[in-house]
Amino acid sequence: MPNGIKVPMPTLERLANYLTIFSDLKIRNVETVSSADLESRAGINAAQFRKDLSYFGEFGRPGIGYNVNELQARISRILNLQKTQSVLLVGAGNLGAALAGYHPLRTENFQIVAAFDNNPNKIGKQLWDLTIQDIDEIISVNKVLQARIGIIAVPASAAQETAERLVSANVVNILNFAPTFIRIPSNVTVRHIDFLQELAVLSYYLPEDD
Amino acid sequence: MPNGIKVPMPTLERLANYLTIFSDLKIRNVETVSSADLESRAGINAAQFRKDLSYFGEFGRPGIGYNVNELQARISRILNLQKTQSVLLVGAGNLGAALAGYHPLRTENFQIVAAFDNNPNKIGKQLWDLTIQDIDEIISVNKVLQARIGIIAVPASAAQETAERLVSANVVNILNFAPTFIRIPSNVTVRHIDFLQELAVLSYYLPEDD
Repeated sequence: MPNGIKVPMPTLERLANYLTIFSDLKIRNVETVSSADLESRAGINAAQFRKDLSYFGEFGRPGIGYNVNELQARISRILNLQKTQSVLLVGAGNLGAALAGYHPLRTENFQIVAAFDNNPNKIGKQLWDLTIQDIDEIISVNKVLQARIGIIAVPASAAQETAERLVSANVVNILNFAPTFIRIPSNVTVRHIDFLQELAVLSYYLPEDD
Repeated sequence: MPNGIKVPMPTLERLANYLTIFSDLKIRNVETVSSADLESRAGINAAQFRKDLSYFGEFGRPGIGYNVNELQARISRILNLQKTQSVLLVGAGNLGAALAGYHPLRTENFQIVAAFDNNPNKIGKQLWDLTIQDIDEIISVNKVLQARIGIIAVPASAAQETAERLVSANVVNILNFAPTFIRIPSNVTVRHIDFLQELAVLSYYLPEDD
C-alpha cells in the first residue's frame, strides 16, 4: 500500500481490469490510446478512468493520449506486479487442479508454488508439476517458500479452517473460491470468487417469459 | 427485471452474497437474525443491508429481526432463483471440466445442461455426465434446451467468437472466465470472473518488505 494513500477498492478493481484491456490492446499493436478510445473500444468510462489514475500522479499527454506500454508498466508497479508473486493453493480437487493448470496463472505475475490437501489419497500425488503436500505441513513449507498469497479451493465446510491455516503460515492475502463467508484477522485481505453468486446476479436479468 | 425498478448492480451483488450467508446461518440452525447480527457475524454493513432490501418492499419485524428462511426465499425470488436455470458451457478444458464437476454448481439453482468445444479430440468425449458437443451445433442444440445463461471457459483469444456464438444461440446472460474484454449487444449481460485481476487486487495489499 504505497505512500499511505487510501485507494478505494473499486478503483483497484478497475486498475486490474485496465491491465487486462492494455494486454488486449498490445496484442492488436495499439501503442497509444485516449480515454475516449478506451470508452469506445472497451466500455470504460473515460471520466472514471482519468479519476482512477489521478490517485497516482500524472499520466498521459494532453492531445496525444496514453502510451499503452507506459501505462501498463506504471499500473503494474502500483499493483506490485513488477515481480512474480508466489501463491499457495489449498485444495487439490477439480477446481484446485484447474487453477494449478490454468495457463494464464502459469505465465503471468503469479505462480502457484505449492499445493496442499488433507486427503491422504491425494497427498504425495502430482498436480501438474507440483507434488500435493499435507496441509499439516503448510507452516514449515511456507517458512521456506515465503508466499504471502493463498488460494482456498476447498469445500465450504473446510474454508474457515483453511483460512486460519493460511494465516498461521503467514499468508496475508487470500483468494477464496469456497461458497462461504470466512472470518479473518483485520491485517489479512480476502477476495471472494463465488461462481454461484455471479450466476445469481445474471439470473436477475433473465427475460420475464423464461 | 421485475417491476421496472432499476436496481444498482452493487445491490444485486450484495443480495447474492446475502444468500450465501443465509445458507451458512441455516446450516448453523440460526432462524432469526437482526441486521446488527449480520454485521457482527458476517461483516455485513447493517445500514447497507436495510437499504438494499428497501428496493423490494418490507422485510423483517421491528424488535424481532428477520426470519432467515423467509428472507432467503424472498431474495431467491427477486433473483429468479425459484427454479433451476439451465446453463451452457463452452470450453471443455481444465477450467470447463472443473466447472462442470463443481459440486455446488450441480446441486443448487443452476445446471450445466450442455458442454461445447471446437477441438475434434474432445468432441464426443465425456465431461462428467455430459457428452462434449461440437460448438458448431450450439444453435440447434439450444433450440431444444432453451438455456439463457452461458459460461465462457475458453482461452482469451477465442472468447469474443464464443460470446457471439452464445448470443446467436439465444443466450442473454454470460459468465466470462476468459481473461479478456468481450463486446456484446446491449441486451446481453456479462459478468467477468478474472482470477488474475483478483490476484492483482490482492497484490496491492502485499506488505512493503516483500
